[in-house]
Amino acid sequence: MAGPYVGTRDFYPEDMQFRNAMFAVIRSVCESYGYLEYSAPLLEPISLYQSKSSEEIVNDQVYRFTDRGDREVAIRPEMTPTMARMVSARGMELIRPVRWYSIANFMRYERPGKGRLREFYQLNADLLGPATPAADAEILSLLIDILTAFGAKQGDFLLRVSDRRLFDSYVQHTDKEVRRSIGRLLDKREKIGEEAFQEELRRTADGPLVDRVNSFLSIRLEDLEKLGQKGEIDAAVGGHLSAVSDILSAQGKSAFLSFDPGIVRGFDYYTGLIFEAQDLNPENRRAICGGGRFDRLLGQMGKNELPAVGFGLGDVTLEQFLRSRGFLADASPKKGCFFILFPESRDASLKIASDLRKAGVLVETSLEPSVKIGKQMEAADKKGRRFVLMMGGDELARGVVRVKDLATGDQTDVKPSDLSSHLNRA
Amino acid sequence: MAGPYVGTRDFYPEDMQFRNAMFAVIRSVCESYGYLEYSAPLLEPISLYQSKSSEEIVNDQVYRFTDRGDREVAIRPEMTPTMARMVSARGMELIRPVRWYSIANFMRYERPGKGRLREFYQLNADLLGPATPAADAEILSLLIDILTAFGAKQGDFLLRVSDRRLFDSYVQHTDKEVRRSIGRLLDKREKIGEEAFQEELRRTADGPLVDRVNSFLSIRLEDLEKLGQKGEIDAAVGGHLSAVSDILSAQGKSAFLSFDPGIVRGFDYYTGLIFEAQDLNPENRRAICGGGRFDRLLGQMGKNELPAVGFGLGDVTLEQFLRSRGFLADASPKKGCFFILFPESRDASLKIASDLRKAGVLVETSLEPSVKIGKQMEAADKKGRRFVLMMGGDELARGVVRVKDLATGDQTDVKPSDLSSHLNRA
Repeated sequence: MAGPYVGTRDFYPEDMQFRNAMFAVIRSVCESYGYLEYSAPLLEPISLYQSKSSEEIVNDQVYRFTDRGDREVAIRPEMTPTMARMVSARGMELIRPVRWYSIANFMRYERPGKGRLREFYQLNADLLGPATPAADAEILSLLIDILTAFGAKQGDFLLRVSDRRLFDSYVQHTDKEVRRSIGRLLDKREKIGEEAFQEELRRTADGPLVDRVNSFLSIRLEDLEKLGQKGEIDAAVGGHLSAVSDILSAQGKSAFLSFDPGIVRGFDYYTGLIFEAQDLNPENRRAICGGGRFDRLLGQMGKNELPAVGFGLGDVTLEQFLRSRGFLADASPKKGCFFILFPESRDASLKIASDLRKAGVLVETSLEPSVKIGKQMEAADKKGRRFVLMMGGDELARGVVRVKDLATGDQTDVKPSDLSSHLNRA
Repeated sequence: MAGPYVGTRDFYPEDMQFRNAMFAVIRSVCESYGYLEYSAPLLEPISLYQSKSSEEIVNDQVYRFTDRGDREVAIRPEMTPTMARMVSARGMELIRPVRWYSIANFMRYERPGKGRLREFYQLNADLLGPATPAADAEILSLLIDILTAFGAKQGDFLLRVSDRRLFDSYVQHTDKEVRRSIGRLLDKREKIGEEAFQEELRRTADGPLVDRVNSFLSIRLEDLEKLGQKGEIDAAVGGHLSAVSDILSAQGKSAFLSFDPGIVRGFDYYTGLIFEAQDLNPENRRAICGGGRFDRLLGQMGKNELPAVGFGLGDVTLEQFLRSRGFLADASPKKGCFFILFPESRDASLKIASDLRKAGVLVETSLEPSVKIGKQMEAADKKGRRFVLMMGGDELARGVVRVKDLATGDQTDVKPSDLSSHLNRA
């Protein structure tokens, strides 16, 4: 029988252990900010994504089909539209600001490659309510805290930050379709490289527009105020970005932040702040994750507008980032015990095993009395157990259990009532 | 915008909290038996289920479609074939016995109703290796320990146990197709009721066969030995079931066990032990979950046979069982704090919030300085926060933070360095 469906993964226990460790760190940081976990259906009507999500996803990547009841459905390719639907459905009931997160699986029909699979898991964290610099700063701060909680330091990653409104206002006199094409091209710039980007740009735009786009790409954070005064960009944007930057500086996080007008992000629903976390490893210079502000999506779902900002952090790129730096690499310690059962004391041993489990001790028991003791010990060791327990006729008569510590080789006889503290102490 | 896709659920934070609590209990019991968690792709080729899973699932219930690469795929309707594929692919590498569990979501196109949805989550626990009574007993014991870990007691549920081989050997001279029809009918018996069952039975079988089926249904555990000697049933089955029962008795679990020849289970791959956990609540007398032994499925997947026994425990029926008895109903205690920020001390407050989070304290901060303090306190209380923190100009000058305990109304001034221990102590 073959392996998993193309672009998806079988998670064997050792893979699952890594995934669980990764999600445990994420959960703990999200919870420390007061974010509440939610979850949602795997399928949504395809209309939930149409003209809200990204064109590329809806047209080329979503897994869609007609169900047995003739409904056009999609396996979720992202969480944001679902989250917006859920918050919108509760309307005014939810206490604001709404701080939500989820970790779920998604599917996109892509060519599998480094950092890209067809099924992936993703953290989504969103903050809904005020559209203040404080809200944007909190979302960026949450992302920084997640990455540093794994052990990442300055120089490991950088949040490249911009605002969706900058580009549109800077080339406002350009035809809308051309603007969109250039936007898509900017989004691919990192992937295709500067040379190919310039070449395609010259095919898409005339000479003055090519210059305009290149001058846009060289804008620095400190230029924004002046450009705003001259009416070349949306004047509010510069002040907002500076305020966000100030709040993060106050928390000692400015070294993780860099203004970069070349950031675009592929989702149609972004309306303000947009950002990407970039891996600074020269061999793996790619976006670990991205996000942005979407102040109009909730209004499209229901009757009320509700400003929102958030990000998605996928497990494939995150795992690559973590593994390339040796984060979460600690082997798990040997733990628990393997209880070898003998026919003459089976029932008493099973009773002790049952009591130990209730006391929080991991206990595996043998299932075939005929297998040799040496072989069972070997299997216990390979499985990562710390102790082997045995109670033969002699131990049964003396009311003790023989405990062999596989780490030291020491053997001790322990009374059943002392076992759990003995084993937990090790 | 509408609610979730028919037969699926939105998990708002309060729903998610219940689901997480439920899975935490399950995980902890599985881990205490040394079961290792694994996970697997959402999609599988449809061929993985054909002629292995249940006909009803493959023909009527599975969500299947052709992907953009012309592959016939299915959203997994169950985990067992995937698990068998994964274990089979690793062949002899895995140390035996293999003790595995997973908690994942599945989809089946069913008419949604009480205890039945189109998307559900399910624990799958499997033990692969020896086909001994000890292995069967361990799987049953694991299931009993999970249900009792929630607080269930004798009289709350019953494991009804039988063996797939009993019926086939008891009616061995019957035409194979008729035997299959009666098998399917037995599987529906609980659902359609005794009267409808007898009526359909008379339509399916002639007079002597009707009597034979009814006499089968009245077989008791103690009859098995004699029936085996007379060659009316597979002689090995009785001895095996008695041995399983003995092992569970030794652990004081016999009160949860009942032999019931009427148990059939719909999956084609079962070859021996079959069982269901039945809710004994008279208003909700239904199967909470079921499982059985499948000794030939691994051989169908790869070159090596590997005996296996396991069960699936779905979240929809389990939640019903738990809620009807008030298990896991404890409201979560108020926790963490809400830090109201003031413009004059924003940066210092954010720094303290950041330090508190690193010390394990849940801290939400305000995002709009203009909102009235009374209103913010109210929101903090509704969100389940225990404390409100404030540092105005006065506190800033004195180097303290004002801490209001929302449970008692007490206010104290605490030095930033003492805050985490002060808040964690409460």
